[in-house]
Amino acid sequence: MKLYDLELSGNCYKVRLFCALNQIPLEVYAVDYLAGEHKSGAYLALNPLGEIPLLADGDFLIRDSQAILIYLAQKHQLTEWWPQEAKSQALVAQWLSFAANNIARGPNDARLHDLFGISLDVASARQNALSCTNILDNHLATHRWLVGDTPTLADIACYPYMALMHQGGVQANSFHHLTRWMNDIKHMEGFITMPGIE
Amino acid sequence: MKLYDLELSGNCYKVRLFCALNQIPLEVYAVDYLAGEHKSGAYLALNPLGEIPLLADGDFLIRDSQAILIYLAQKHQLTEWWPQEAKSQALVAQWLSFAANNIARGPNDARLHDLFGISLDVASARQNALSCTNILDNHLATHRWLVGDTPTLADIACYPYMALMHQGGVQANSFHHLTRWMNDIKHMEGFITMPGIE
Repeated sequence: MKLYDLELSGNCYKVRLFCALNQIPLEVYAVDYLAGEHKSGAYLALNPLGEIPLLADGDFLIRDSQAILIYLAQKHQLTEWWPQEAKSQALVAQWLSFAANNIARGPNDARLHDLFGISLDVASARQNALSCTNILDNHLATHRWLVGDTPTLADIACYPYMALMHQGGVQANSFHHLTRWMNDIKHMEGFITMPGIE
Repeated sequence: MKLYDLELSGNCYKVRLFCALNQIPLEVYAVDYLAGEHKSGAYLALNPLGEIPLLADGDFLIRDSQAILIYLAQKHQLTEWWPQEAKSQALVAQWLSFAANNIARGPNDARLHDLFGISLDVASARQNALSCTNILDNHLATHRWLVGDTPTLADIACYPYMALMHQGGVQANSFHHLTRWMNDIKHMEGFITMPGIE
């Protein structure tokens, strides 16, 4: 499987991290972001959204980090990561949407502004980041993992941009349950890091 | 099952529409949005995000329209709507993220601004709406439904805010494949409408 990758992208890191934790072999192809390769005709033919990551499994193409995680878990029958029982699966899906919407509009956007110079409403992004932080911290006060007793795709999808939040001008230090959870993820067997996460 | 509902919300409509199409009984409870019931302590205890919809199935609570759709399909084993095979499921999930992120930041935000007076960057929202429109129209030029040969959760998740886009100042009329698809959805057996969709 080939991952169209950007090293500094938290969304790409989600996929690399999940594969590392589950010993899934991955050929990583570095998209030339600075040269605008992701907006080239050749890339847009593979992913019309012009977004990275993109996974190619033979002829099969799948975009969006959340969908890629679901694909990998469903394909490899990693049911502890992507439960098949309706209630548990829906609870994981709830946090995948939280990653795709709330975290994207919060810590991810704030970092895009600060680190990559993207023009956007950074005050609003930082406010959203704080809201994400509060919601996660409150939830993690009574839950070791986001859903159930073991890590799931929910944790993998939400972790990267929370761990990178400081690059968007928002500090997580005073949120003890959130930092405890991030620390637990770091101590998982097979954990790998990315630039910006110590 | 009880749906905490707002009649004018496209996200709530997704759930009502899916239940209507599949004859799933639903007790609809109208949250008093104007009185701020969704930000009350009682509601936040059920959904810390303060968002509508929320589904209660006995003691089980699930928020987020995409996650609710997955819950209902997985619970009732509606595998034509939520395929169990990895590639098909991931392709549906890809469009669920498109609904949770791109459509939320596009037609949904533009409508929030125009219809509900929410303060946000409406120029950016309308630009995102046009981008969503182009991506969907191009995809639907060669696909009857978003994934596979029959409607899936992908169609239900993406439809409402595309059909309501005119309420955010963006017209879909000239996008023929998109309008053909929206028309096909309207002609499904059991289809119900909502204010703003003729």
